[in-house]
Amino acid sequence: MSEWTKYADQLTSQSRTASRALAIVDGAHKQKWLRRSAELLLTRADEIAVANAKDLEKAPEYGLNAAAIDRLKLNRSRLEVIAAALGDVASLPDPVGEIFDSNVRPNGLLVTRVRVPLGVVFFIYESRPNVTVDAASLCVKSGNAVILRGGKEALHSNIALHQVLRDALVDTGLPEHAVQLVQSTEREIVGELLKRGDRIDVTIPRGGKSLIERVSAEAKMPVIKHFDGICHVYVDKTADHAMALDILKNSKCQRPGVCNAAECLLVHADIAESFLPKAGAMLKDERVEIRGCDRTRRSVPWAKPATEQDYRTEYLDLIISVKVVDDVTAAINHIEEYGSHHTETIVTNDLSAAQRFTAEVDSAAVMVNASTRFNDGGEFGLGAEIGISTDKFHARGPCGLRELTSYKWVAHGNGQIRS
Amino acid sequence: MSEWTKYADQLTSQSRTASRALAIVDGAHKQKWLRRSAELLLTRADEIAVANAKDLEKAPEYGLNAAAIDRLKLNRSRLEVIAAALGDVASLPDPVGEIFDSNVRPNGLLVTRVRVPLGVVFFIYESRPNVTVDAASLCVKSGNAVILRGGKEALHSNIALHQVLRDALVDTGLPEHAVQLVQSTEREIVGELLKRGDRIDVTIPRGGKSLIERVSAEAKMPVIKHFDGICHVYVDKTADHAMALDILKNSKCQRPGVCNAAECLLVHADIAESFLPKAGAMLKDERVEIRGCDRTRRSVPWAKPATEQDYRTEYLDLIISVKVVDDVTAAINHIEEYGSHHTETIVTNDLSAAQRFTAEVDSAAVMVNASTRFNDGGEFGLGAEIGISTDKFHARGPCGLRELTSYKWVAHGNGQIRS
Repeated sequence: MSEWTKYADQLTSQSRTASRALAIVDGAHKQKWLRRSAELLLTRADEIAVANAKDLEKAPEYGLNAAAIDRLKLNRSRLEVIAAALGDVASLPDPVGEIFDSNVRPNGLLVTRVRVPLGVVFFIYESRPNVTVDAASLCVKSGNAVILRGGKEALHSNIALHQVLRDALVDTGLPEHAVQLVQSTEREIVGELLKRGDRIDVTIPRGGKSLIERVSAEAKMPVIKHFDGICHVYVDKTADHAMALDILKNSKCQRPGVCNAAECLLVHADIAESFLPKAGAMLKDERVEIRGCDRTRRSVPWAKPATEQDYRTEYLDLIISVKVVDDVTAAINHIEEYGSHHTETIVTNDLSAAQRFTAEVDSAAVMVNASTRFNDGGEFGLGAEIGISTDKFHARGPCGLRELTSYKWVAHGNGQIRS
Repeated sequence: MSEWTKYADQLTSQSRTASRALAIVDGAHKQKWLRRSAELLLTRADEIAVANAKDLEKAPEYGLNAAAIDRLKLNRSRLEVIAAALGDVASLPDPVGEIFDSNVRPNGLLVTRVRVPLGVVFFIYESRPNVTVDAASLCVKSGNAVILRGGKEALHSNIALHQVLRDALVDTGLPEHAVQLVQSTEREIVGELLKRGDRIDVTIPRGGKSLIERVSAEAKMPVIKHFDGICHVYVDKTADHAMALDILKNSKCQRPGVCNAAECLLVHADIAESFLPKAGAMLKDERVEIRGCDRTRRSVPWAKPATEQDYRTEYLDLIISVKVVDDVTAAINHIEEYGSHHTETIVTNDLSAAQRFTAEVDSAAVMVNASTRFNDGGEFGLGAEIGISTDKFHARGPCGLRELTSYKWVAHGNGQIRS
């Protein structure tokens, strides 16, 4: 038995035991843990800063650029934000035990469905250390034990943060292994853990495409995965142009590096000549490079020609592809062919176009007259999110506390037997 | 490219196209298809009987026993039952388009979750040909295209039934590839299809353990799987003895060969001497073999001694293991250690014991004062079931129409952008 096999056995066996105990802990105890963790984060800010300094020192060796190094920093004000987020999670309704469905059968049997934790979550993420605390808080709040595996760039910071979370578990009488951190940055341990479909109920990778592809290929348990966001803004014939410009600008430019930012603009042919010059000017002002089809370039002469590949690209940058389409059907077909089923919006005043778009576009989120940037756990009212799913199974789109649960059927009778 | 690769490509590509069209078909059209299928099943009863006769002729070659041969038979009265089931599915509420969650955000954005089909279902089953029609009806009703792969023993019957379903699709204007049957009984084609995680959204195997293990190991898409049912009846100290005997008898004897039949009886130590002789006598009358612990054998001298392995065995037969436990905690711990997380029941009049049992027993279905046999889609009010899941992810327990769906987020705004 290799070193990694043994370590994976130990981690998963401790998690399973913790998860069984945690599943029946009441909401008040979980709130106490969240609040105690927030308290300890601040009283131990200096200790965390010392650990963080070790990571910051090594950061250039790992090739982190200035922005990435900044995201790695854990000063007091950053810790205050993390602590406040713990308080927010404490305030959310406890999902465990919620009866979300019931019916009384003709024989008097009361059949209910009761929300229960999934069990053990394996959460794999990259550099930012605040994710350590965010993910642990959501998993434990939903009654799950969690095994955290952070990036090597943040190892010392993560160890310090995990120590705080673990001490808070002990202080508040919760199982100390409810939150475990993989204390190694070797690749092998991830492979070993991904084999444990018998002991881990779900794996959630958060990071680049290669991480998610590796996890999907190796995992012997369900994976909540998040692939590309090639999001579209479709401006229909009846769109209010000012509204369309606002939504386009917000969708493309507010934060171009994130998954729910727009990558492609589709414009109804009937308004191409009136709308596209305005859109082109706005995008130019925002320093967005335009790559358009022939019809686009007639209205926006400075647009570069778009290739087939452009329409399949998640730029995550100030670049947009543009295409003029004949009608809502052509827009829907383009999205089906080139999109990634993430987030699309239609700007329209035509009820039947809006109905067709929302019914026929097969994406995790479909908006009418709103920015694509709203596809987010916080914006949708989930309180907090552990990730976004681009799958259709179990959970789709933003995943909050409920998406970290399963259910059991509980039936109450008074002697019913089956005939 | 092998023959099987080509065939898998063809099947899955046809299914994907059909599924896209089917996802937006309204409920009335799906009902028409269900009713037309029911009609054709009866008008073509003779043709189906000819195909069925070919299977019946070959049945002894495949080693089918008399009971299995009987289950394979498709005479007019059997077809009437299948046709009636189609009518029942037609009458169920359409799950697609249901808004099951909504909230208005402070900025006025109306956020909803709308039920949508999963897409393409690959359904693998064994001998009984009625399953062909049942499974197709539930998949199409929930807006999914389905690829059916039946057992070799029923191939000719399945081809005839599939022809009926397909003709009804054409007659009612639905995509003809919404229901496809794998027209081969070779193992290789299943392996090829299980690789198509990009084109098949879920695989549902229904059959023996080896089928389910193979599918779980090979599938590159989610699997709704159904493993063992080692179900427990726990008779608590305060149980009404007559009720406990009824529930025990029903759970063990009504249909011992099915997954929700009880395999183990747990009895509170305080009532072992009063309850076990009555239970032993009843089980003897029902010709159930008893394998008990030492304390059981003091009250039921004719019980054989139970081994450790007995408590881990799904007998599916007139055999029961029995154990005397000290209290509800010991019962819960025994179930956690030896059970299969399928179905357990407590017979009690003690509210706190009932609460602990339902909260702490981690099974798909937990009953209070009712037979284990109620863990069933029909009995729980789902209308019909495509299978039972022993997983926690996506769906747990009986799976009906809703469990064959996913959802999308649909947000309605009037120009909202994110700040």
